[in-house]
Amino acid sequence: MTQATRVHVAVPNAPYDVHVGEGVLQGIAAATAGADRVAVVSDREVCALHGDLRRHGVDAPMLEFDGGESIKTLGVLEEVLDFCAASSLSRSSILVAYGGGTVGDLTGMAASLFKRGLRVIQVPTTLLAQVDASVGGKTAINLAAGKNLAGTFHQPHAVFCDTGLLGTLSEAEYQSGLGEVIKTALIEGEPALAQLESISRDLGARAVTALSDTVARCVTTKARVVVSDPEERGARRSLNLGHTFAHAIEHAAGYGRVPHGIAVAVGLQLAASASERVYASSTDLGERIGRLLSAFGLPADLEELRSRYSLGAALTANALIEGLGHDKKGRVGAPEFVLMRGPGDIELGVMIAEEELRDLLA
Amino acid sequence: MTQATRVHVAVPNAPYDVHVGEGVLQGIAAATAGADRVAVVSDREVCALHGDLRRHGVDAPMLEFDGGESIKTLGVLEEVLDFCAASSLSRSSILVAYGGGTVGDLTGMAASLFKRGLRVIQVPTTLLAQVDASVGGKTAINLAAGKNLAGTFHQPHAVFCDTGLLGTLSEAEYQSGLGEVIKTALIEGEPALAQLESISRDLGARAVTALSDTVARCVTTKARVVVSDPEERGARRSLNLGHTFAHAIEHAAGYGRVPHGIAVAVGLQLAASASERVYASSTDLGERIGRLLSAFGLPADLEELRSRYSLGAALTANALIEGLGHDKKGRVGAPEFVLMRGPGDIELGVMIAEEELRDLLA
Repeated sequence: MTQATRVHVAVPNAPYDVHVGEGVLQGIAAATAGADRVAVVSDREVCALHGDLRRHGVDAPMLEFDGGESIKTLGVLEEVLDFCAASSLSRSSILVAYGGGTVGDLTGMAASLFKRGLRVIQVPTTLLAQVDASVGGKTAINLAAGKNLAGTFHQPHAVFCDTGLLGTLSEAEYQSGLGEVIKTALIEGEPALAQLESISRDLGARAVTALSDTVARCVTTKARVVVSDPEERGARRSLNLGHTFAHAIEHAAGYGRVPHGIAVAVGLQLAASASERVYASSTDLGERIGRLLSAFGLPADLEELRSRYSLGAALTANALIEGLGHDKKGRVGAPEFVLMRGPGDIELGVMIAEEELRDLLA
Repeated sequence: MTQATRVHVAVPNAPYDVHVGEGVLQGIAAATAGADRVAVVSDREVCALHGDLRRHGVDAPMLEFDGGESIKTLGVLEEVLDFCAASSLSRSSILVAYGGGTVGDLTGMAASLFKRGLRVIQVPTTLLAQVDASVGGKTAINLAAGKNLAGTFHQPHAVFCDTGLLGTLSEAEYQSGLGEVIKTALIEGEPALAQLESISRDLGARAVTALSDTVARCVTTKARVVVSDPEERGARRSLNLGHTFAHAIEHAAGYGRVPHGIAVAVGLQLAASASERVYASSTDLGERIGRLLSAFGLPADLEELRSRYSLGAALTANALIEGLGHDKKGRVGAPEFVLMRGPGDIELGVMIAEEELRDLLA
């Protein structure tokens, strides 16, 4: 193990630790030792590349899926729940999610529902899931009407972010995680943003130290925000920076066409532009975000996203505005945005006039 | 309105009131007034008999189902969630459940999941749901492996137990509720049991005062127990008196063959017999329960249940013991029972040797 960091998430009733670093997965057998039974839901490709969790001492029934948004349905959720029943899990058992964000969302939701709740351990295997999705207890599946429209808050029992698993990610998967990394630095504040800028080259190259350090920093920010507001009644909404736009992009493109973190990356750029308009101020934030996006090989704006994914016909301003109406954060008929006056200076619940939106999304 | 009682359920974070009495439903329009939108899930037969909630001033989209266990599936849950999306509900909206326990369980679960949770108002229309299911926040659907195996804890925003709705219940539906009424008196203690015995004739005849009084008493007991342990980590398990046996009966018979409360009624008698064996004591509890069951026209024991529902071949001791293994309360492989040394003197987590169970269930 090179460096291991433990981040404590002090949510009420059920605090837990996030273990970050190369090789931390070797601790999972000990973490499951207190359960009467264990069962594992895995990503098939991750198991093929890295071995399943038996390799790490977890001897348990296993269910494998191909990851991706297509598994986040009530039908697949039922398969997982039936697997829990077939594995004779009780309320004293532990379910383990071993895969990317979609496996984690699905498995976390099953764990929150089976017998009205048992413990789940998250083993995120993508950068996106390590820096964002696996910490904080949000679970979800998609409905026909929109992404993540049904879910629960169910904090994990423990999280293992083994950065040794990230070397096999495709470039697109890795870039997708970098979108959330930029978001997290913007929420944390100027020092975090400057630090990210300073290591952007190493991070783009997946250098071991830069990677472990970045995941630990992101998890620390996420933990701080989640602890302040576990069920997203207020402050936690800051984590949705860029996400209202991102969800509209994903909705208009069709789920799964644009990786979530890449939609978020472009959403951050849109949030920066929207912030300049709303606050009638000129900052260098858009430019700095653009430089980071380019350094990471991410599309730098909406136009570049359209051309890279051949989505010019789908991602029209009209379609995006229609998609904004499906965002679940706001009250009926009025999408709300998370904007920023500067790094770490986040404002929630901002409304934007439709004509402004049309300009932004043109 | 004849008599109206308000029972306050002081659970942490989200306390609420249960309104009990004939005509209390007229208060529902005011209770929904704070929501940005409202949608209603109803039992079709209840609407045909009593009118839908528009009659009571709730002008909202409505979705109707035939009640019964067959709606407690993930497939129907998805219909309700899609209905929430089609009704453009936000986290500030209210979903109303207008029907028996199955409509309440399903709708409550949808409310807990849609956008990770919005408010639900329960309007229970059966005696079973009024005295038990609608208060306390348990929601559930069934899996192939067993009843109520997936669900959430999601306390309602308000509950309206309008006893004026109970006059149209079939005799079997009404009797089903009386099973839970007996259970609640046994949990509450000797005065409650004696009081129930004293009004058993009026209650069997659905006399207005006896009915309102009984529902209010049951809700008060339930509220007290739920407040002491909202997520069923300990004391709340006392409410499962008779239920481990009842679930085994329902499992062995096939869901929906024996109404839940009637299975509970026989389960109470089995719990009394089991208690006598385990505590090697002789009490008159079994006899008193038997007299109440007979007074209410309920099957007085397992034998009578088998013959009344022609389930002699299904409800064998073997099948019932197999069904006990599916109970979700205990740890893996060891069903736990709620027994009683006397009225109000309840013991949780009791294990019973298999040979004793075979004798009991013969």
